[in-house]
Amino acid sequence: MTVEPIPSVADPAAALRELGLELPEVADDPKYINWRASRDGRIYISGQLPYRDGVLPVSGVVGDDERAGVDEGTVDIETAREMMQQATLNALAVAADAAGGLEYVRVVQMLVFVLSAPGFGQQSRVADAGSEMLVRVLGEEGRHARTAIGVAGLPRNSPVEVQMVCEVRP
Amino acid sequence: MTVEPIPSVADPAAALRELGLELPEVADDPKYINWRASRDGRIYISGQLPYRDGVLPVSGVVGDDERAGVDEGTVDIETAREMMQQATLNALAVAADAAGGLEYVRVVQMLVFVLSAPGFGQQSRVADAGSEMLVRVLGEEGRHARTAIGVAGLPRNSPVEVQMVCEVRP
Amino acid sequence: MTVEPIPSVADPAAALRELGLELPEVADDPKYINWRASRDGRIYISGQLPYRDGVLPVSGVVGDDERAGVDEGTVDIETAREMMQQATLNALAVAADAAGGLEYVRVVQMLVFVLSAPGFGQQSRVADAGSEMLVRVLGEEGRHARTAIGVAGLPRNSPVEVQMVCEVRP
Repeated sequence: MTVEPIPSVADPAAALRELGLELPEVADDPKYINWRASRDGRIYISGQLPYRDGVLPVSGVVGDDERAGVDEGTVDIETAREMMQQATLNALAVAADAAGGLEYVRVVQMLVFVLSAPGFGQQSRVADAGSEMLVRVLGEEGRHARTAIGVAGLPRNSPVEVQMVCEVRP
Repeated sequence: MTVEPIPSVADPAAALRELGLELPEVADDPKYINWRASRDGRIYISGQLPYRDGVLPVSGVVGDDERAGVDEGTVDIETAREMMQQATLNALAVAADAAGGLEYVRVVQMLVFVLSAPGFGQQSRVADAGSEMLVRVLGEEGRHARTAIGVAGLPRNSPVEVQMVCEVRP
Repeated sequence: MTVEPIPSVADPAAALRELGLELPEVADDPKYINWRASRDGRIYISGQLPYRDGVLPVSGVVGDDERAGVDEGTVDIETAREMMQQATLNALAVAADAAGGLEYVRVVQMLVFVLSAPGFGQQSRVADAGSEMLVRVLGEEGRHARTAIGVAGLPRNSPVEVQMVCEVRP
């Protein structure tokens, strides 16, 4: 079976603006770096949380019903999808930074972590919010292999975290 | 220390048949792709669930005793190992598809997720069922670096999920 | 934004000794291998637990307060950080083995799993203990992209597990 390519996007920055989004500025943490390139040009991006203007807008486990009740409160799927889009946007900003511009980014793989209430099984639906944004902004260059899992904990009780592998588009 | 190579398998398809297995057909999801190759030939395979003929045969957390009791029911280790073999088989089918045939697949890495009941610590034993199958089918080309962890949630409450990195065998 | 490089470490073995650490011997498990190199020289290291002299010194979930109480007992953050350093040391030993010596190791990525009590959100602080050690021992060659998550289970109820991707330094 051949995977049919989809069109590339000529102006990713414009596509991003059409979605009402803009790339955040990337600030390195003194303790660790946002990305690391292998010698042959693969770009490994550190796990990204859905920070927006330096603030984590939401924390707590994601659930779809009352089973999800915990101390930190429950995040519903639509909110989790918003946070997923934000975390993916943050990863994309790091990728653009590493590749020398959004137009040079080719996404390869995404590993998605959803802080999950017991019995919650809609991690794919949460992850889709990030995948869809990448394809809308980058077209073929935004497609990626993906794994989505539910985890027991994330830094600062963030509802989602995104890890990405990219490369530079020739 | 040198890792001693083991023999390659001349006819992987025959080895697969001897195990009573056959590669399933690969169907792409409209939302995302099953694999993505980096420009230098590494193949990243999307997380695979143990679907069999389009059906997820089992769902629920894996446990080894009564602590595992939850709504979705508990999956015992032997069943989890069967599901692990199936998910690995599905990943192998995608790898064969991407590489142009089973005989061109070289496995590099496997990341194994087991939906785990509190206190369950036998993720390695579950993961072994996939690793053993790969080595029996592909020999040296089936060996891989592996990480096995227990997670709080998986899509559709699948008991296992497998992520694989492969490359094309010269 | 450019990531400023930090100095390389001329004698990593001496830097390791200054920290009071030494590389453990690497022993392959008959069931699976400790590392796998891709054909273009990337080294994928299997998930490492904090074994010390063949013994897992601590098991159980990591937590920061009384919420963490479970059968296996609770591991506090300082102990978890020690275990993180040990698991990272074990991964570094495998990397040195694979690369032909500690002085040829360049770390690319680290994926850190912390067995987490409900509500525990300090996975980054645990992971820092491994990242800091790598940078002190290898300098620029020890920096890495990193993702830290909390998981529901780990083999043998280990409090931490570390997966690493490296390459050979020219």
